[in-house]
Amino acid sequence: MLPRGRPRALGAAALLLVLILIGFFLFGGDLECERREQGGPGSFRCSLTPRVPPDGDLPADHGGCNRSDCVPLRPLPPKCELLHVAMVCAGHNTSRDVITLVKSMLFFRKNPLHLHLVTDAVARNILETLFHTWMVPAVRVSFYDAEELKPQVSWIPNKHYSGLYGLMKLVLPGALPPALARVIVLDTDVTFASDIAELWALFAYFSDEQVIGLVENQSDWYLGNLWRNHRPWPALGRGFNTGVILLRLDRLRQAGWEQMWKLTATQELLTLPATSLADQVWGSLLGGGGQAQGQGEMAVSAQDIFNAIIKRHPGLVLPLPCIWNVQLSDHTLAERCYSEAADLKVIHWNSPKKLRVKNKHVEFFRNLHLTFLEYNGNLLRRELFGCPSPPPPEAEQLQRALAHLSEEDTCLEFRQQQLTVHRVHITFLPHEPPPPRPHDVTLVAQLSMDRLQMLEALCRHWPGPMSLALYLTDAEAQQFLHFVEASAVLSARQDVAYHVVYREGSLYPINQLRNVAMAQALTPYVFLSDIDLLPSYSLYDYLRASIEQLELGSGRKAALVVPAFETLHYHFTFPNSKAELLALLDAGSLYTFRSHEWPQGYAPTDYARWREAQAPYRVQWAADYEPYVVVPRDCPRYDPRFVGFGWNKVAHIVELDAQEYELLVLPEAFTIHLPHTPSPDISRFRSRPTYRDCLQILKDEFHQDLSRHYGAAALKYLTALQQPEAPQG
Amino acid sequence: MLPRGRPRALGAAALLLVLILIGFFLFGGDLECERREQGGPGSFRCSLTPRVPPDGDLPADHGGCNRSDCVPLRPLPPKCELLHVAMVCAGHNTSRDVITLVKSMLFFRKNPLHLHLVTDAVARNILETLFHTWMVPAVRVSFYDAEELKPQVSWIPNKHYSGLYGLMKLVLPGALPPALARVIVLDTDVTFASDIAELWALFAYFSDEQVIGLVENQSDWYLGNLWRNHRPWPALGRGFNTGVILLRLDRLRQAGWEQMWKLTATQELLTLPATSLADQVWGSLLGGGGQAQGQGEMAVSAQDIFNAIIKRHPGLVLPLPCIWNVQLSDHTLAERCYSEAADLKVIHWNSPKKLRVKNKHVEFFRNLHLTFLEYNGNLLRRELFGCPSPPPPEAEQLQRALAHLSEEDTCLEFRQQQLTVHRVHITFLPHEPPPPRPHDVTLVAQLSMDRLQMLEALCRHWPGPMSLALYLTDAEAQQFLHFVEASAVLSARQDVAYHVVYREGSLYPINQLRNVAMAQALTPYVFLSDIDLLPSYSLYDYLRASIEQLELGSGRKAALVVPAFETLHYHFTFPNSKAELLALLDAGSLYTFRSHEWPQGYAPTDYARWREAQAPYRVQWAADYEPYVVVPRDCPRYDPRFVGFGWNKVAHIVELDAQEYELLVLPEAFTIHLPHTPSPDISRFRSRPTYRDCLQILKDEFHQDLSRHYGAAALKYLTALQQPEAPQG
Repeated sequence: MLPRGRPRALGAAALLLVLILIGFFLFGGDLECERREQGGPGSFRCSLTPRVPPDGDLPADHGGCNRSDCVPLRPLPPKCELLHVAMVCAGHNTSRDVITLVKSMLFFRKNPLHLHLVTDAVARNILETLFHTWMVPAVRVSFYDAEELKPQVSWIPNKHYSGLYGLMKLVLPGALPPALARVIVLDTDVTFASDIAELWALFAYFSDEQVIGLVENQSDWYLGNLWRNHRPWPALGRGFNTGVILLRLDRLRQAGWEQMWKLTATQELLTLPATSLADQVWGSLLGGGGQAQGQGEMAVSAQDIFNAIIKRHPGLVLPLPCIWNVQLSDHTLAERCYSEAADLKVIHWNSPKKLRVKNKHVEFFRNLHLTFLEYNGNLLRRELFGCPSPPPPEAEQLQRALAHLSEEDTCLEFRQQQLTVHRVHITFLPHEPPPPRPHDVTLVAQLSMDRLQMLEALCRHWPGPMSLALYLTDAEAQQFLHFVEASAVLSARQDVAYHVVYREGSLYPINQLRNVAMAQALTPYVFLSDIDLLPSYSLYDYLRASIEQLELGSGRKAALVVPAFETLHYHFTFPNSKAELLALLDAGSLYTFRSHEWPQGYAPTDYARWREAQAPYRVQWAADYEPYVVVPRDCPRYDPRFVGFGWNKVAHIVELDAQEYELLVLPEAFTIHLPHTPSPDISRFRSRPTYRDCLQILKDEFHQDLSRHYGAAALKYLTALQQPEAPQG
Repeated sequence: MLPRGRPRALGAAALLLVLILIGFFLFGGDLECERREQGGPGSFRCSLTPRVPPDGDLPADHGGCNRSDCVPLRPLPPKCELLHVAMVCAGHNTSRDVITLVKSMLFFRKNPLHLHLVTDAVARNILETLFHTWMVPAVRVSFYDAEELKPQVSWIPNKHYSGLYGLMKLVLPGALPPALARVIVLDTDVTFASDIAELWALFAYFSDEQVIGLVENQSDWYLGNLWRNHRPWPALGRGFNTGVILLRLDRLRQAGWEQMWKLTATQELLTLPATSLADQVWGSLLGGGGQAQGQGEMAVSAQDIFNAIIKRHPGLVLPLPCIWNVQLSDHTLAERCYSEAADLKVIHWNSPKKLRVKNKHVEFFRNLHLTFLEYNGNLLRRELFGCPSPPPPEAEQLQRALAHLSEEDTCLEFRQQQLTVHRVHITFLPHEPPPPRPHDVTLVAQLSMDRLQMLEALCRHWPGPMSLALYLTDAEAQQFLHFVEASAVLSARQDVAYHVVYREGSLYPINQLRNVAMAQALTPYVFLSDIDLLPSYSLYDYLRASIEQLELGSGRKAALVVPAFETLHYHFTFPNSKAELLALLDAGSLYTFRSHEWPQGYAPTDYARWREAQAPYRVQWAADYEPYVVVPRDCPRYDPRFVGFGWNKVAHIVELDAQEYELLVLPEAFTIHLPHTPSPDISRFRSRPTYRDCLQILKDEFHQDLSRHYGAAALKYLTALQQPEAPQG
């Protein structure tokens, strides 16, 4: 029945309901507080009753309730309040973790967020590119240089350089902007299963004295006496876990936090000098003190210092409900928390074993984590309702450009694909940049999942640096990760940079991928190859020698052509020399590349001359020429309008010629194309007339742009093309 | 600070918190109730105040609250209470929708669920297989035959047969088990964004009189007067939407529901005979009455009848908060609901345009929906905490079998893969079973994403029925769907059945896939092929003629061998006859299949004899023989222990020979293998010694089982194999 004409009753009911909601968000689910003696086997629950006087009455400002069926009034964060989150992130692997954490946070969030990321150079590079291309509305990201903070914590003994990053949580009150009063601090190994606003709402529970909100440890580590002479750092009972922290930055600054923690740490280090390495390793496994550092080396952790401070000043801490930091270490006591909770809010993978931790419910938690590992991050580009959450300026520009496209345009699909800003995760796996060498060359290529099996062979053929763009979904990126881990050949290579470009749209954005890989190459020269081609074993050395010999470094503008061949056999013995190659060619086991379907693509290389050549020779550009070349890293980009199949390399060679690069064929260089199944884009090209029509339109537009840019000099490209078209790629 | 020694205070606080929680789950977020006059432009909110007297006081049994800052006591569904959900589902497309809906429901649920599915034969077949293989703990599924319910609704005028399914919501009180008192009824086009227990909890709000809980319509359809002579069915104001219904089945049965709705429908049909087709089409677009039926044909909907009943008996309905059914039709008024809500609970795609509906926030909703479309359903196989939720018996058996495996076993990965029960979605796309014909043959094959481009060619070569198993992730299954929709060739074929087997594990379960495809073939014979082979254009007709001629139907046990050839060229003109094929063979453009790498696999076919043969000829089994054959559908299954690459077809031919199938080579039949990139499994086979070792172990075990089963007759297979091994597949 629809209630009408009872506004007063409804108003009262409405108010009532708002109160309920508020109450729920504040308390979050499991707030009973009970704690047995240290180390006892009893019930383990988390406490949250900071201001409740012993008799159970709440003060008047909590709503004036004095009955057991009433709820105190407490503010939820206003609907569109900006929530601040801080994380410390260093290195390639931790950057991947942070992204998964952020995905889980964004999935459930309903508020604008400001992420404060303390990063090393590697993480900053990765995350800056990622967030820039992700374009999530209502997310702001600020970076803070971990290098600058190091001196403040580097005096604390650490077995390993990277241990310093963990300690940086201690210096956040000074590092974050002075105007920032409150922040949630997260370890990178947590996963959200709920809206972070519910966590933020717990700030309302801080008493005037309290400055830090923490969940109790769900391990017995800090209780001590796990074995003879087990002497952990001092803590209140089981101590607190610092994977999830609510920090009142304003009060910490007022209270002289910097002095406080430095004094505590210094004093404890003096009285507890003998904390053994072994102890800390164990502590880490048990989810207690210590901190995983590379190969199991441990050190004093921020958690140790936080706990030592709290032991001295117990009034500083607001204990949080355990469901906000469910700790999944090997011997975790977390089950006492989650088995009674209706709900879990944050999962913390605080064992060095991470997802391989032994725990009878780990499957459940792992599935939650995998959900976000595999989650399509593009789906998180959604606006917030009712909050003014303008998209980033780039996103708005993009929206306008897309809105400009005509639904009638033959090339609509192509133009949409060209405009798409793909989320990019550069150096997805650990990567050592090559040492600076003046003639060094990076192999540049792009691939999708169906070409992964080429990687090992490529590594065997090219011992130098590579920059590869991979076009993957989030789930495929995880499969790729496992693929590399399972391969001894790939795992051994630190000089191969893998850049994941996340899939979006129906056409393969081949030139955008090439540009990503090229932009990330760190050597002065790049070898622009394709994933199906295997270079001769000596090519890397030979190219570097040639670059030096030809004095390309001294301003000579040249593209070195690497002649391409192809085999039609999967089982194929790769020639060890030019002589062997020529023998195979004569025997009909090899062909010059695409000599049947697309001769004009490679014929200008002049294979007959190459057979005999002893020195590099110059060739002239001709229509549709698309050789594989070595060029300086700062050469023109590929034209991103060519997506899918067709003319993508050709346009780049035209551009090189227009910019007056000499085309020099190297007499000892060669690369061989292996057979593969036609890509879906090739099948489309063959089956759809509009695909060809559109390619023609794009080529025309390319030539118009060329004329605009190079004037009369570009005329030759147009006249050269007054010939019938043949399929190519 | 940890509170100790204050148990009383804590107890009181605890009770208080429980109350808050209860309150939250009951109210859910947006419960304000206000409603302007019909058709007015004002605020649109949903009402939920059934038992609040005008003065705003709640009765004593609600907790005795009488102040605006108090919460009434209301029970949440007990933690492990079984929740019942009913849906009507018919056909292939709706089955896919239901699965996405169920995924969203399972993602957020924390209670055991019992799904009551009213299905036609197609949906039952699909969903029974799916749930059986999904093995989600704490989910029970019951099926009800829609055929049996049809007579109860078939008297209501319907332009189209399928309109009857929508009406079946009306007969649920009689169709569901008499002991079932309460059920949530859902349309198949809704997506959950929250825990269904919160919806279930609203049952506690029913007054003694109320029997149906519904959300108001978020369109002006039922207000009438949208145009001249617009006469919708009668409704209270905007009427209610029946996409989400809470039904008190017990009370409906008591109240004589069947008589009530039949009487109402009959009377309204008499007084409103002229409801035009056009009106109903519009009504559907506007999210009002009517119901999409195939090609836009409309009819009287269950929603019309529910609303007519409610108009007569307004006391029967409990209006639910609008967030429980956010209706996304073209001119939806839903924004008035969701723009003020903190949260959305259920999204309803109640436009025939579904995800292509025009709505300024559709991107947001679409992303939520895509989340579950693409979500890896395997991750939902998670137990409930704290609820006794034993997995299905098959799952327990599987757990035991997996637990039996030794971590040291060389073949651990193979055995895990073999034991894996893959989630299977049969007939993923609409499919017409072939008419029963005694000599008909289904082509059986399996593939993964990287072979999709073979499908069109295969359709051109094989005009008969096909049963194809596709090994995909959930996200890939969506890509596959789009691939088929974009292809005119594939869309035109209703006789190709696609069975999705969801990916799990690291090895390609080739024989499990073949078995799925074979089990789903509906003709008496199957042609066991592979996806990379294209049959001769006439093969389908020729095979049927041969089967008839050879009188296979009359008990003759034979496998018809289709000789296989291969080409190494992507660009390849397929021979139109045996003569053309032989010419290509002589010209060296074609080879007999695998003659170089694995001659023993096909040599026993005796290609020399085949050249000259005019009639079928018998050949003898020999070691490693693995021809492509046509066999009766009830022939032995493939051995699922062979996963990945190697010996998977060989073992099947051994099994056929052991069961005394004649091997008859057909003189005019041929099939040609096209080149493709080596699969990751082949690459692994080549690169890993353990892969080969393990394959040898599996072969030995296969032979042991063969001896056990066939006794001395199986000896010949062992002796035949006393030769060195070569790679094969």
